Amino acid sequence: MQLNLQILQKLENIVGPLYLFVDEETRNHYGHDETEDYLFPPNVVLKPANALEISAVLKVANDFKIPVTPIGARTGLSGGALSIYGGIGLSMERLNQIIDIDEKNLQVTVEPAVITQVLREAVLEKNLSYPVDPSSQGSCWIGGNVAENAGGARALKYGVTKDYVLNLEVVLPSGEIIWTGANTLKNATGYNLTQLMVGSEGTLGVITKIVLKLIPANKHNVLLLVPFYQANQACEAVSAIFRAGIVPSALEFMERDALEWTMKYIDGVSVQIKDDIQAHLLIEVDGNYPEILMLEAEKILEVVENYKIDEVLFADSEEQKNALWKMRRAVGEAVKSNSIYKEEDTVVPRYELPKLLKGIKSIGHKYGFQSVCYGHAGDGNLHVNIIKGDLSDRVWEKEVPNGIREIFELTVSLKGTLSGEHGIGYVQKNYMDIVFSKTHLELMERIKFVFDPNNILNPGKIFPDEM
Amino acid sequence: MQLNLQILQKLENIVGPLYLFVDEETRNHYGHDETEDYLFPPNVVLKPANALEISAVLKVANDFKIPVTPIGARTGLSGGALSIYGGIGLSMERLNQIIDIDEKNLQVTVEPAVITQVLREAVLEKNLSYPVDPSSQGSCWIGGNVAENAGGARALKYGVTKDYVLNLEVVLPSGEIIWTGANTLKNATGYNLTQLMVGSEGTLGVITKIVLKLIPANKHNVLLLVPFYQANQACEAVSAIFRAGIVPSALEFMERDALEWTMKYIDGVSVQIKDDIQAHLLIEVDGNYPEILMLEAEKILEVVENYKIDEVLFADSEEQKNALWKMRRAVGEAVKSNSIYKEEDTVVPRYELPKLLKGIKSIGHKYGFQSVCYGHAGDGNLHVNIIKGDLSDRVWEKEVPNGIREIFELTVSLKGTLSGEHGIGYVQKNYMDIVFSKTHLELMERIKFVFDPNNILNPGKIFPDEM
Repeated sequence: MQLNLQILQKLENIVGPLYLFVDEETRNHYGHDETEDYLFPPNVVLKPANALEISAVLKVANDFKIPVTPIGARTGLSGGALSIYGGIGLSMERLNQIIDIDEKNLQVTVEPAVITQVLREAVLEKNLSYPVDPSSQGSCWIGGNVAENAGGARALKYGVTKDYVLNLEVVLPSGEIIWTGANTLKNATGYNLTQLMVGSEGTLGVITKIVLKLIPANKHNVLLLVPFYQANQACEAVSAIFRAGIVPSALEFMERDALEWTMKYIDGVSVQIKDDIQAHLLIEVDGNYPEILMLEAEKILEVVENYKIDEVLFADSEEQKNALWKMRRAVGEAVKSNSIYKEEDTVVPRYELPKLLKGIKSIGHKYGFQSVCYGHAGDGNLHVNIIKGDLSDRVWEKEVPNGIREIFELTVSLKGTLSGEHGIGYVQKNYMDIVFSKTHLELMERIKFVFDPNNILNPGKIFPDEM
Repeated sequence: MQLNLQILQKLENIVGPLYLFVDEETRNHYGHDETEDYLFPPNVVLKPANALEISAVLKVANDFKIPVTPIGARTGLSGGALSIYGGIGLSMERLNQIIDIDEKNLQVTVEPAVITQVLREAVLEKNLSYPVDPSSQGSCWIGGNVAENAGGARALKYGVTKDYVLNLEVVLPSGEIIWTGANTLKNATGYNLTQLMVGSEGTLGVITKIVLKLIPANKHNVLLLVPFYQANQACEAVSAIFRAGIVPSALEFMERDALEWTMKYIDGVSVQIKDDIQAHLLIEVDGNYPEILMLEAEKILEVVENYKIDEVLFADSEEQKNALWKMRRAVGEAVKSNSIYKEEDTVVPRYELPKLLKGIKSIGHKYGFQSVCYGHAGDGNLHVNIIKGDLSDRVWEKEVPNGIREIFELTVSLKGTLSGEHGIGYVQKNYMDIVFSKTHLELMERIKFVFDPNNILNPGKIFPDEM
C-alpha cells in the first residue's frame, strides 16, 4: 500500500512534526549510501527518538503494509540502507548515546547511532578496547556495524562485530520490544537470537540498544610496510606468517594501483614505490610489552625475507603509523574516485588468497575489465574493485556481472563466500544462489517470515529476486 | 505414532542389522546421561555410519512422526540427549574421525563423535590450539559441545564453542543436508545459520561435520591457587583482576566444601586447607614468554593481597599443575557422589558474582537446602549444586524447585541468565519463562517449526511444557 495523508498523520503523531520529512532534498539525502551511485529515496523520512516510537511506527507500517528501511550512517557498501521500495526511511540518528561504559564488567551499552570511532575512543579513555575497526570507523555507526556484521583490519586477531555483541534490544516488526540475550560472556539458554540478529541487515528487527564486550586495551604496537615484487608472493606470505606462530593484529594487502591512486587522492602521505613492486603488505603486531613486539616483528621479517621483497618500512612514530593507516583506510574511496566501479567483498580461507587473486585477474582478462584488489588479507577478505574505465555501458551492465558471477563461483569453490564484511543487501542478492541451495535460502526466507510475516522490514534485501 | 515392525524394518534397511538395537540393556545404556538420575530409553537405538544414513533415517521419522533424539557422549548435564518420548535414539558414535587438520588455514574439520580432549591433543601436535576445554573434555564429544555451546575454564580469555565454529554440515529434519556457512573467519552472507545451530541442543538439525577455527598454541602458563578467608572476597577479586588490565586464561572459584569433597573423592591430590578458609581461586595466565607471565602473576598477587588471603600456592611443575586441574575438573563428580543433587549453571556479569553467591546462600537458608558452589568465576559462570542430603522427598520435589526459581530470578535481575554452558535441555525448560517473554519464546518456537514442522527432532527440550 502507498503512503497517504491519513498514514502520514499517524506517523507524525508518533514522532512529532519536527521529525517527519517529505521534502525531496531530505528524501534524496536519505536515499543513498556509499554503494555505487544508487539512489532510492523513501517516501517519508522519520527520525524517532527511541524504541517506543519505533515500535509505534512499525505497528502502523504493519497495519498498512508499508515498507520500512532502517537507516544508519549510510556508509554501507551493499545497499542495505536503500529504500528500494520507497515507504518509510527510519533514520536512527537520534538514538546516539553511549549509555553506560561498565568498567566493572568490561562491557558497554550503546545506542545504534554512535560513530564507531567515537565509541572506541570513549572506551579507550577507560583503558578498554572495542577492537573492531571497519575502515569507515570515522563515519560509520555501531548499529550499522551490528546490522552488517562489520569487520575491519583487526579481525584476524580480535574477530568481527559478532564476536563482541552480547545482547541487543530489538524492536520486532510486530512492534514488540525484546532483549535478545543476556549481558554475559557465556550463554546456553535457548536459540541464539542475538547472533541471528547480527548481520541480518535490518530485515528481522530494528536494533535500539547494543551491549558489547570490551577487553583491556593494549598499550603498544609495531607497524611494518613490506613491498613485494610479486603480488602472488605477498598473498603467500600472509599464511606463512601465521604458520610461524604469530597472530598479527593487522595484515593488509594492497595492489600497486591501490596505493598509487590513494597517494594521489589524499595529502600528507608519501611512500616511494619502485617501478617493479606489485603489492604491499601492511603488518601490525600489538601487545603490552614493546620488547616482545620487537621479537615478533623480527620473526615476521624472517618470514617475508623468504620472498622477493624490497626494503621494509618500520613505522616508528605515532605520526608515521597514523599516516600509513590513513593511507590504507582511504584506498576504497581513492579507487572509487577514479572511475565508476563495482566493489566485491570476497572472502576465502587465507591460504587460498593467491589462487583467488590469480583467478580474479584471469576472469578480468576474459571479460576485459581491470580490477584493483586490496583488503584484509590476514583473514582472507579481499576487496575487489572492478573499474568501468573505458568499458561500454552494455559491457558494464550485461557482461561484467557474468564475470562477477565467475569470481564468486571461484570464492565458493575455495570454501569461501560472497561477503566477508559488507553484507549482501541490494547489490549481491542475485548471487546468493551460488553459495546457498534452494533449501537453504528457503530456510532463511522462512526465518524472515517468522519475524516479519508482512515483509515490511527492509524488503528487497538479501534474498534473490527469483527463488 | 509408535514404532512398529514395518518401520523398524525400514530403519534396519538403512543402517544395517548390526547397527540397530532394541534390547533393553542397549536402550537403557543410551537412555541416560550425566543429568541427575534420569532414565529415558529410546525404543530403538540406531548407529548410522554417515550423514546419508542419518538423512534416510530422518525421512522415515518424518513420514511416520517418530521422535528422534541425537545422542553423543551422554556427558550432558541438562538432559539434552534423553529420549523423553522414546522413539529413535540416534547415536553419533560412528562419526568419529578427525577429517582434516588444515595447518595452512588454521582450521580443523571433525566429525561429532571425537572426544574433545583427543581433538585438542591432535591439533596441539601441530602446535595449534583448540582452546575450549569443558571440564568433561576427557569424555565429552565435540558434537555435543557444539550442540550445547559448551564453555569451560578458558572461556574468559578464549571464548566458548560458538566462537570457534566456522561452518557445520547439518542433516535437517527433512533429510536434506546443508553446510550452514563457509570456512572463513569473516562472513556477512545471509542469516547466520551456523550460530543458530550452535547451542540449539539437537532440536534443529543433526550435526555431522564441524569446521573449527584454531589458533597458534601457547607454550607457557603459570598457575596459582589462592585461599580466601571470605568467599565473597574471592568473588570480588575476580573482577578486580580484570580491572588491573590482566586477562587470565582461567579463573576458577571453589567453595571450601567443593575442594574438601573432591580431595576425598580423587587420589593423588592434597591441598592443606586451614579451618577458616571459605573459598579458593585457581588462576592461570598463559602466553609465549615466561618472563611476561611472571610479571602478570605478580600483578595478580598485588590484586589478591588487597583481600584476606592465606599463602598462595604457585604450581611450578607440570605434575603439580595437572594435579590442581585434575582436582578442579573432578569437583562436579565429587560433589554429586555425595548426595542426590540438582545442578544449576547460573551465569551473570562477573562483577555481580558476590551478589549472586550471597543470594544463593540466602535462598538456600529460606528453603532449607545446602548448596555447593564452584565454577568459572572469570566469566561469571557459577555452578550451584543443590544437595538433597536429609531433605524429604516432598520438600525436594515440591519446595526446592521454588528455591531454584528464585535463584534464576536473581540471576536474571543481575542481567544474567539460566545457563552459561550446560544448556536448557530437559531439566531447565520450565524456568524459561523467567528470562524470556511469551513473544520471545514464540519466536524461538516458530524457528523450530521452520526447521522441523513435525517436531520429530529432540522433542520436549528447551521449550516450557506450557507456553
